[in-house]
Amino acid sequence: MSTLVAPPDPSQWSCPAPLRDHPTIVLGHGGGGLLSAELIEHLFVPAFGNPALDQMGDAAVLALAESERGARLAMTTDSFVVRPLVFPGGSIGDLAVNGTVNDLAMRGARPRWLSVGFILEEGLPLATLARVVDDMAAAARRAGVAIVTGDTKVVERGHGDGLYVNTAGVGVVPDGVEIAPDRARPGDAILVSGTLGDHGMAIMSVREGLEFESPIVSDCRPLAALAEALRAALPPGALHVLRDPTRGGLAASLHEIAGRSGVGVALEDARIPVRAEVAAACEMLGMDPLHVANEGKLVAFVDGAHAEAALAALRAHADGEDAALVGYAVADHPGQLVARTAIGATRVIAPALGEQLPRIC
Amino acid sequence: MSTLVAPPDPSQWSCPAPLRDHPTIVLGHGGGGLLSAELIEHLFVPAFGNPALDQMGDAAVLALAESERGARLAMTTDSFVVRPLVFPGGSIGDLAVNGTVNDLAMRGARPRWLSVGFILEEGLPLATLARVVDDMAAAARRAGVAIVTGDTKVVERGHGDGLYVNTAGVGVVPDGVEIAPDRARPGDAILVSGTLGDHGMAIMSVREGLEFESPIVSDCRPLAALAEALRAALPPGALHVLRDPTRGGLAASLHEIAGRSGVGVALEDARIPVRAEVAAACEMLGMDPLHVANEGKLVAFVDGAHAEAALAALRAHADGEDAALVGYAVADHPGQLVARTAIGATRVIAPALGEQLPRIC
Repeated sequence: MSTLVAPPDPSQWSCPAPLRDHPTIVLGHGGGGLLSAELIEHLFVPAFGNPALDQMGDAAVLALAESERGARLAMTTDSFVVRPLVFPGGSIGDLAVNGTVNDLAMRGARPRWLSVGFILEEGLPLATLARVVDDMAAAARRAGVAIVTGDTKVVERGHGDGLYVNTAGVGVVPDGVEIAPDRARPGDAILVSGTLGDHGMAIMSVREGLEFESPIVSDCRPLAALAEALRAALPPGALHVLRDPTRGGLAASLHEIAGRSGVGVALEDARIPVRAEVAAACEMLGMDPLHVANEGKLVAFVDGAHAEAALAALRAHADGEDAALVGYAVADHPGQLVARTAIGATRVIAPALGEQLPRIC
Repeated sequence: MSTLVAPPDPSQWSCPAPLRDHPTIVLGHGGGGLLSAELIEHLFVPAFGNPALDQMGDAAVLALAESERGARLAMTTDSFVVRPLVFPGGSIGDLAVNGTVNDLAMRGARPRWLSVGFILEEGLPLATLARVVDDMAAAARRAGVAIVTGDTKVVERGHGDGLYVNTAGVGVVPDGVEIAPDRARPGDAILVSGTLGDHGMAIMSVREGLEFESPIVSDCRPLAALAEALRAALPPGALHVLRDPTRGGLAASLHEIAGRSGVGVALEDARIPVRAEVAAACEMLGMDPLHVANEGKLVAFVDGAHAEAALAALRAHADGEDAALVGYAVADHPGQLVARTAIGATRVIAPALGEQLPRIC
């Protein structure tokens, strides 16, 4: 057996030279004085720099492109409290950018601008913050969004957990796009863009010290390009619902869509893509991959007449190679999820009460 | 001596009836399952409810008014970690809404939409969260903004401090408005909209158990209407800079403006409005009111030819009755603050390194 993908060695991370007088975060870094200004000047601006951020006002002023001026906006927010801060396949920085980018994409929006709010604990190594900031900057470049405004607060030692981060995002919704969780209809095909449970099990295998032949790696990635490719491949209006099944996994997303749209969901267990090592880890820990978080997958409800075109569009994209048609929306049992098992029996998938995997994102 | 204004008695707060099975926050409230859904259904939606929030998608979809379609947007974010959560004159809920509303207003924007991200600590009384949510809803109504999207995470006991909250905001910048921290010019009059240091000293007097004849109350309030009244009273382009002097107080705001605009700042100590009880508290604790946080005051740099009109406009507004002209921008000593003291001497006001008053907002 090969060894676990180890998180990078924090001693290898470094912080920008002018900040080395204070190698760990002190309360003054959140005080709005010279120490705050140093963080902004030597860490945030070099990493995130863009004309809007460089304005340095209390707020960033942003202009829509000429062609977008009649368009609607999308707005979303997420806070991130994942443990550990760095894990196989990503870090809290990647998550914080991709999570908010993906929430915008799930309404059919083109993600454009992000805000970032850090809550740092006194004593956090500045090099850890620098690593997270670099990851955020790289993820923002990949997703084509600009980090335009931010805020840093510091809490006393023992009143935080190193680093929490909030991102909020704004995107532009193209004319005619109507994608929402209450638009599923009986007969819709339900597709997922790839294997389920990778992110949650990557985090759990680090926390539990599990080792597998092929290490489990988070699927954390931006989904806006995949969502746009799917929409472009279908006739207008044929893409009814998009959702990224994060906390609570595919089951929580499907329960919410079923409830809001008043449809039932009929799945086929055999069609649900799960990596062998993820299935093994889930079995070992007594978890159901349908309830485990993903950070780089989407679920789509598509007019059933266009199911094949939708599947082909997902599979043609680098972020959707393992896409699968996993079931259909039905008029029966509204609000409920039913799966046909491999041996042909039927099981009802109950909604989870709370949290199987605390602090997974 | 009268007694200190006591924070409200938490035992008097209540939480909505359907949530009483779990009178304190548990990890599952952040898990995306039924417990999360209960918080949303019985607490957040009744308090914040509006058509955009009710969409319940991964992001809210928002439409600009017809008349705003060519306009620029403003975007900002702040996290709030104030201790205690409730203080004379407000709570973390009021602060979280007004702080972000004010950051938008300081760019001349009309605040429109807010996102809210909670990071809750396991064990937080649900009634405390309900109180904060009610305060946020009331502050949003007063400021004329809608809370359109949100997120809740829960961290284990001992890894937070009850409740942290992040808000991000989006506003619309009217055509022709150009207000930014690099637009101050020598000859500009510098005005403040009222007494300085009230918020910081209200928090400190609670923490230190200080009692005064007249209790010190936070000035926490929305400033968008005052900012708009000031702009409307002046010729186009005469209002150069707006800033709300929060963390670091007036001194930090003036240092930043002076540095970014390349001007010096000349103040007259005798003209700076400070309440007697705030001055007394500052003296007792060895603080300078110029470095103490405000949460309901603005500082404006206005073309010197229109100083009187600006002062009259501020004083005519209920949120600017104690406004004062406190000094001028000068070509000398760029980036530096100099004050003429009451006895006619001159002092240089040095920038603060870090934090006089940790967790003031």
